[in-house]
Amino acid sequence: MLYFMNDYSEGAHEKVLNALAKTNMEQHVGYGVDDITYEAAQLIKNRINKPDSDVHFLVTGTQTNAIAIAHFLRPYEAVIATDLGHISVHETGAIEATGHKIIEMESKDGLLTTEMIDAAVSKHADEHWVLPKLVYLSNATETGTIYTKSMLEDIRKTCDKYGLYLYLDGARLANALTCKDNDMTIEDIADITDAFSIGGTKNGILFGEALVITNSQLKGNMRFSIKQRGALLAKGRLLGVQFKALFEDDLYFEIAKHTNEMATILKNGILELGYELVTNPSTNLIFTVLPNSVHRKLSKLCYYEAEHPFDENNMEARFVTSWATPKEDVLELLRLLKELNE
Amino acid sequence: MLYFMNDYSEGAHEKVLNALAKTNMEQHVGYGVDDITYEAAQLIKNRINKPDSDVHFLVTGTQTNAIAIAHFLRPYEAVIATDLGHISVHETGAIEATGHKIIEMESKDGLLTTEMIDAAVSKHADEHWVLPKLVYLSNATETGTIYTKSMLEDIRKTCDKYGLYLYLDGARLANALTCKDNDMTIEDIADITDAFSIGGTKNGILFGEALVITNSQLKGNMRFSIKQRGALLAKGRLLGVQFKALFEDDLYFEIAKHTNEMATILKNGILELGYELVTNPSTNLIFTVLPNSVHRKLSKLCYYEAEHPFDENNMEARFVTSWATPKEDVLELLRLLKELNE
Amino acid sequence: MLYFMNDYSEGAHEKVLNALAKTNMEQHVGYGVDDITYEAAQLIKNRINKPDSDVHFLVTGTQTNAIAIAHFLRPYEAVIATDLGHISVHETGAIEATGHKIIEMESKDGLLTTEMIDAAVSKHADEHWVLPKLVYLSNATETGTIYTKSMLEDIRKTCDKYGLYLYLDGARLANALTCKDNDMTIEDIADITDAFSIGGTKNGILFGEALVITNSQLKGNMRFSIKQRGALLAKGRLLGVQFKALFEDDLYFEIAKHTNEMATILKNGILELGYELVTNPSTNLIFTVLPNSVHRKLSKLCYYEAEHPFDENNMEARFVTSWATPKEDVLELLRLLKELNE
Amino acid sequence: MLYFMNDYSEGAHEKVLNALAKTNMEQHVGYGVDDITYEAAQLIKNRINKPDSDVHFLVTGTQTNAIAIAHFLRPYEAVIATDLGHISVHETGAIEATGHKIIEMESKDGLLTTEMIDAAVSKHADEHWVLPKLVYLSNATETGTIYTKSMLEDIRKTCDKYGLYLYLDGARLANALTCKDNDMTIEDIADITDAFSIGGTKNGILFGEALVITNSQLKGNMRFSIKQRGALLAKGRLLGVQFKALFEDDLYFEIAKHTNEMATILKNGILELGYELVTNPSTNLIFTVLPNSVHRKLSKLCYYEAEHPFDENNMEARFVTSWATPKEDVLELLRLLKELNE
Repeated sequence: MLYFMNDYSEGAHEKVLNALAKTNMEQHVGYGVDDITYEAAQLIKNRINKPDSDVHFLVTGTQTNAIAIAHFLRPYEAVIATDLGHISVHETGAIEATGHKIIEMESKDGLLTTEMIDAAVSKHADEHWVLPKLVYLSNATETGTIYTKSMLEDIRKTCDKYGLYLYLDGARLANALTCKDNDMTIEDIADITDAFSIGGTKNGILFGEALVITNSQLKGNMRFSIKQRGALLAKGRLLGVQFKALFEDDLYFEIAKHTNEMATILKNGILELGYELVTNPSTNLIFTVLPNSVHRKLSKLCYYEAEHPFDENNMEARFVTSWATPKEDVLELLRLLKELNE
Repeated sequence: MLYFMNDYSEGAHEKVLNALAKTNMEQHVGYGVDDITYEAAQLIKNRINKPDSDVHFLVTGTQTNAIAIAHFLRPYEAVIATDLGHISVHETGAIEATGHKIIEMESKDGLLTTEMIDAAVSKHADEHWVLPKLVYLSNATETGTIYTKSMLEDIRKTCDKYGLYLYLDGARLANALTCKDNDMTIEDIADITDAFSIGGTKNGILFGEALVITNSQLKGNMRFSIKQRGALLAKGRLLGVQFKALFEDDLYFEIAKHTNEMATILKNGILELGYELVTNPSTNLIFTVLPNSVHRKLSKLCYYEAEHPFDENNMEARFVTSWATPKEDVLELLRLLKELNE
Repeated sequence: MLYFMNDYSEGAHEKVLNALAKTNMEQHVGYGVDDITYEAAQLIKNRINKPDSDVHFLVTGTQTNAIAIAHFLRPYEAVIATDLGHISVHETGAIEATGHKIIEMESKDGLLTTEMIDAAVSKHADEHWVLPKLVYLSNATETGTIYTKSMLEDIRKTCDKYGLYLYLDGARLANALTCKDNDMTIEDIADITDAFSIGGTKNGILFGEALVITNSQLKGNMRFSIKQRGALLAKGRLLGVQFKALFEDDLYFEIAKHTNEMATILKNGILELGYELVTNPSTNLIFTVLPNSVHRKLSKLCYYEAEHPFDENNMEARFVTSWATPKEDVLELLRLLKELNE
Repeated sequence: MLYFMNDYSEGAHEKVLNALAKTNMEQHVGYGVDDITYEAAQLIKNRINKPDSDVHFLVTGTQTNAIAIAHFLRPYEAVIATDLGHISVHETGAIEATGHKIIEMESKDGLLTTEMIDAAVSKHADEHWVLPKLVYLSNATETGTIYTKSMLEDIRKTCDKYGLYLYLDGARLANALTCKDNDMTIEDIADITDAFSIGGTKNGILFGEALVITNSQLKGNMRFSIKQRGALLAKGRLLGVQFKALFEDDLYFEIAKHTNEMATILKNGILELGYELVTNPSTNLIFTVLPNSVHRKLSKLCYYEAEHPFDENNMEARFVTSWATPKEDVLELLRLLKELNE
């Protein structure tokens, strides 16, 4: 069976796994105050050119979003996000579970616009409404689209106008920053946002997200929030080891380049074969329209997500490439898509 | 440097690490609904002789306690625990953060008695008080003591008298069940409690706790709570692989036997040398009294926790053995304790 | 100045005030377990023909909604409501503050349809989403519209299909049940819903909402939730006295009839004068379009809410009648609307 | 029947009731931004000599404590209080329900000492513990004792040493400040604390507590918290009217003086009759020891609280005087206590 289900189907990149094996019997103090974790944090601070930022290593994306947002906000403050944002739909209400409302703005492509922020803020008049205080973006978005630098700068200006924090969920940040349409660096992300995450789980490590906080007002006592939410790993150095491996030789970006290249080959191949794309993704999430007959046959030969019926005769299907996707598999999938449609 | 700091200083037992390496490039569906995780859960259900129980794999102990307790209770219901319980003092108020009060009963040795439960319940008269609804035990306790079977059965009876759930935090369950003073099996634990955890982090795996729910009233929709709290690992099979390794040949208990043996050698040696113990532990946490002069010298040769001054002239120190502690290190520590005290 | 700002501008109906004065120096036990409160609850149980229902008296509407919903739901369960629902927009995120997401369905007139419930449920597939569990309606709605009996029965069927609770916010229930378009009795409301509130604050008493629970699965330990949320009034009998006055001779409905009659006169008069209505309300909230010139002059002679610009030349204005609105004031307002528009 | 059950058995002082009646048909804007509420707040600011303080009017004491504390603290911050504090035992875990742990220090007389604060802070070492951030006092305490000025000043110094906020629950502040043993003014309270409440419910009004915030760091956006917790009364002016009546001619203190005088007569009479007091109260809560034979007879003639058996032969009973207690009733109670014991 081919496998285009998602980008977290395999374990870890071999460099990461080797680093874990190599350090396995070392003895380190617990809870992420060990030397390796310190070095990993330093590597990231250097890479983003923010020596004064705080870097924390967490286990899952939902955890990272919920802990960061709950730490940053007062009880009556709310988040502005799109209705496709991961926190809006795929985290079982984790943000609301911390007491905060998400003001969900309708979006077709997963991108939040300054108009949406304006609209959300202007509607929330007084203390009978929640107080919008934080803008949540994901880059890449849940539909595979990305923000350009000017889009992000405009959002920053809008945030400043209203006194909003800007938080960027980077679960697929590597994919965003290494794709063809991208015009930003990770330094830009660090410059423009107040805090952001650097996703590892979907980019070659066993598990882990780095939370970067650049706005010094948001930094204080974060480790209390991490521990309180059960996210402080006893063997914290596991996160340090993995992120150190990712950031030692820019492996983080190298991995994602491969993922994106595989996605580009797949996307172009799909278009050439005459299939329709549902969105126009810049990264590794490819939503396409499969005739039901093709879907029926293909689903016995390849794992992928059948999202929902596109119309009576077609299925919307999602193909995802990963750091571990071999080029042969992409070509084989294209071959099948050709053959099964004939 | 010798290392008796804690039982989570190293990575994973080699069998566990090998299992992770061997399955690394396998492709599995995410979020713990893969085959390996299923097999691991089955192994545990068989081992505890409860085919109808639910087994969930989580990442950290604090997470496991908070998710289980918040899932089991209604907003106004409270937990009864000792004032030394892990949830009372070492989890940054994680339980209260989910809205539930802990009724903390004073205890010298970390063990909760039926008298304490009686006292807690009788004090809470009506709706002006929280409603006690769950008893929290840890076995082994935070001071290294353990419950006997008759103690646990009496607590069960008391719980039944008042309609209380009985939850057992098994972060160090393996140590409890393999020590000399123990008279219980893991089947007993499963029979007597409503839910309990099987700690992996402190017993040879990289990370992970298994949450076992035997009371069918408490099972429903637990995966929602796990996801909402950010504890549903994308690569859930990592937990499955590790727990499968632990429970395939009773490695779980074999590992802990070693830990306890090392602790017994250390404890007896310490007593022979004329040092005083603060508690009388059955497992691997040894609290002892070091003259300040010994402490000053030893702390340059060995890592351990200096808890707090015992009195003017002495320090209370905690030595912890682990699955990875070599016998040579224990003997070397005893040698130093002898030499430095002369 | 005329006053059409809202229906809670004055104190209490004289019968209510007299009852408070008459009982003022009586000595009663605290916290709502006194005889008068008991009698008031009995009056309501009789009136709705549900002797086994539970009736609790609370202080504010936001409090009532938040306490009821948080009491009924498990942490991962969510509410389905319209995006105009009071809990969605005018309660400062009180529901989310208890940890529960509101799934907001777009509505033009404030009414929730079975199609919206179907859509909300079908979107929420698994444990990565919150679990829809309770449908929230307000009757009358926030735009002055009402549900018919067949609408409510259809919603009940849809709730049963999905295992959802049906909760009705009756902050303006009296207005709904006494208006011309209504075809339901308060017995119907009690028959069809699982729980509902009977609003007093906007219908002639100083403050107070009665929460009625008919579904016995939802009743248990509600007084714990009420006390925990700070809603258990020390002098609980104040609520008993007021609701007893309201339900002794159906004063509750008599008051609302007047309110609605005043609204009907106003609405018809406005239409006759050629003004446009924004919605077609059945009860006492009349949203109309005022030319800016009229608004500028009228706002110096009458209090009302200028919602927001309707377009460049017009303002959307809200006029509200109450139990205390004299007919002369309605006629005088109509006179002004005529005069100022000439 | 005589009535010494509590100090909230009657309605309101006649001046308060008259003020409510007199303003009943006035039309005011809702939610406490009306002129009367403004005047009441000004009266309090003048009386405490803090023109820059913020004054909010709330409905119940539990509500006031929970809203204030949750507004002041970050999620991982905790409260230090005695184990007899109202928030510790009589508010159904309202503080924990907002996510915050109460560090309960054992106290015999309900008074918190600087030693207790020192002990609580020194125990909470790092991010594995909650972070103590707010000291909660009640004055008068739940046992009728009071703080002297030097006690309160010492606590303030201790708070400053550790960066703790000082919050004083004044549910019975009037009783504390008008009793014989008191050496403080309400200006002192305002000078020394960061925030405190002025209880109305137990001192002559129907319901209501004023929350005073003097520390400007704690003031921001409090109305959002009040609304979110369902505590923003639609007819907010009801609180304004009542507190205006209380503070127009120092009625607040005059009322309490009477309460205390009645308590003093009762206390001295009880001692003269040879009964034992359980505590040595300065205010209006008198805990005394009644032989069972006396209790059996007295309880048919007088309402009071039988706390719990004092020993085999005696009952601990609580007598409470109020603003409405007539001197005749006190004398009659003393007569009965004499007669029944003969």
